Amino acid sequence: MTWDIFTVVGTIAFAISGAIVAMEEEYDLFGIYILGMITAFGGGAIRNLLIGVPVSALWEQGEFFTIAALSITAVILFPQNLLRHWPVWGNFFDAIGLAAFAVQGALYAEGMNHPLSAVVVAAVLTGSGGGLVRDVLAQRKPALLRDEVYGVWAALAGLIIAVGGAETPAQLIILFMFITMLRILSYKYSWHLPKRTVKF
Amino acid sequence: MTWDIFTVVGTIAFAISGAIVAMEEEYDLFGIYILGMITAFGGGAIRNLLIGVPVSALWEQGEFFTIAALSITAVILFPQNLLRHWPVWGNFFDAIGLAAFAVQGALYAEGMNHPLSAVVVAAVLTGSGGGLVRDVLAQRKPALLRDEVYGVWAALAGLIIAVGGAETPAQLIILFMFITMLRILSYKYSWHLPKRTVKF
Amino acid sequence: MTWDIFTVVGTIAFAISGAIVAMEEEYDLFGIYILGMITAFGGGAIRNLLIGVPVSALWEQGEFFTIAALSITAVILFPQNLLRHWPVWGNFFDAIGLAAFAVQGALYAEGMNHPLSAVVVAAVLTGSGGGLVRDVLAQRKPALLRDEVYGVWAALAGLIIAVGGAETPAQLIILFMFITMLRILSYKYSWHLPKRTVKF
Repeated sequence: MTWDIFTVVGTIAFAISGAIVAMEEEYDLFGIYILGMITAFGGGAIRNLLIGVPVSALWEQGEFFTIAALSITAVILFPQNLLRHWPVWGNFFDAIGLAAFAVQGALYAEGMNHPLSAVVVAAVLTGSGGGLVRDVLAQRKPALLRDEVYGVWAALAGLIIAVGGAETPAQLIILFMFITMLRILSYKYSWHLPKRTVKF
Repeated sequence: MTWDIFTVVGTIAFAISGAIVAMEEEYDLFGIYILGMITAFGGGAIRNLLIGVPVSALWEQGEFFTIAALSITAVILFPQNLLRHWPVWGNFFDAIGLAAFAVQGALYAEGMNHPLSAVVVAAVLTGSGGGLVRDVLAQRKPALLRDEVYGVWAALAGLIIAVGGAETPAQLIILFMFITMLRILSYKYSWHLPKRTVKF
Repeated sequence: MTWDIFTVVGTIAFAISGAIVAMEEEYDLFGIYILGMITAFGGGAIRNLLIGVPVSALWEQGEFFTIAALSITAVILFPQNLLRHWPVWGNFFDAIGLAAFAVQGALYAEGMNHPLSAVVVAAVLTGSGGGLVRDVLAQRKPALLRDEVYGVWAALAGLIIAVGGAETPAQLIILFMFITMLRILSYKYSWHLPKRTVKF
């Protein structure tokens, strides 16, 4: 139940983030809906594909589609001066989505007895795969691969679940809050991973 | 039988459109064939993936591969002054492909008892998914997400089929002609969906 | 056994090539690992998808993941003056990977009694699909579609296997060496396929 609330928050955050990227790129209304839906559901679809759940399991999430579509509609109708606050609120919601989706993705993969590497990948892809596809379709360099620390927190959630570090509902909620907080701190204080560049 | 003709026309149109994008981007011969084939068959592959048909069902369409490969070869050999007419003819053929593929994709998904949302998505992806992958591989912003009204007509076809608005072969042919016509009008009169942009 | 060595060499070469592209694009450490892993395993994942093997078969390759991760770590730690030699050595290793993966992909598809076209596609995708995804995620025009002759050699390997031109281990090793050599020559002498461009 509590968990469902986080998933709803995450779905809304991801749908809105896709819609806003489409608006920034001057895509049309159809493009805004498509990019919003792909950002919200793309991560789960890729995760299903990689861990061996039929991708078509997507279609059982009827209410989530409705929630995502309504969120996108709301963003389209929002006056510009309300949208201005998105970068602040958006990152807060997005952090909740990242953490909730990462935890769920990892639990999913672990429930199928996949090895540690698959659990971590499932956490990362469920948490951030939608944003990756969003960036590719908007012709942007994927934020996941170069901006503030993001995917690493999803990987950390996966790792902790894979080694049995969080199992009871209470432990999972604590893990969720911990990951959410780390992501918010990363954004707020512009934490970056080191880079190693090369030129030939 | 009539239906097969539309599919053939659509396959040819999509294969040629991929080949021409590759030629515009100065890809080599191998790239021209690959992009042509991906545009012709990519939409169906993604649809299969999302609605739960094995993607490998692709390989049963032997003759269509041959047709697509021959079309691409023809385009490569065409003199430049014939190719000049492509933007006009190409959009006509492409409209037939969009409508034929959208109707087929929707029927496919409906035959598997998927919910309305899946039927609409299957129509959109089968009709326009190949063009989406084509644009990503050519490093272009997807035309589907921002140019004249395109994907919406595929979605409309899916919606009409999902609510039982076209079931007999005669009704389906009428739907097909209706969608083709709407797409041709969109292109001819540069119909655009509204945009909602945002800047931060 | 011999075969395993080639696969290991190919995995290392592909992982390093992805990591180096990420470093060139100034992606962060997380991005470097992700792009390296996707380049090493993406081709096999796409091939599995298209020929009907569960994509989740990926997770059975535990040691290869470790090898790829260690290779990426090594590249990150390498001093700049050693990395300078990568373009030369890299192409040599990459040619081994292309040939080894193409042969394996083709054998895989043939073992499932797929038609000739699927065997050729499996060879091309296993050999070069990882590089294709790498380029899309780095926002580059795919090298596969326009640079020196590359994918054609994978297709040739697939074709020879599909028509029964190489079946015994000895024949397969000869085919592997032949394809590796053709790719090295293509790079060394800048062989290009003809292009056919068009402007409207």
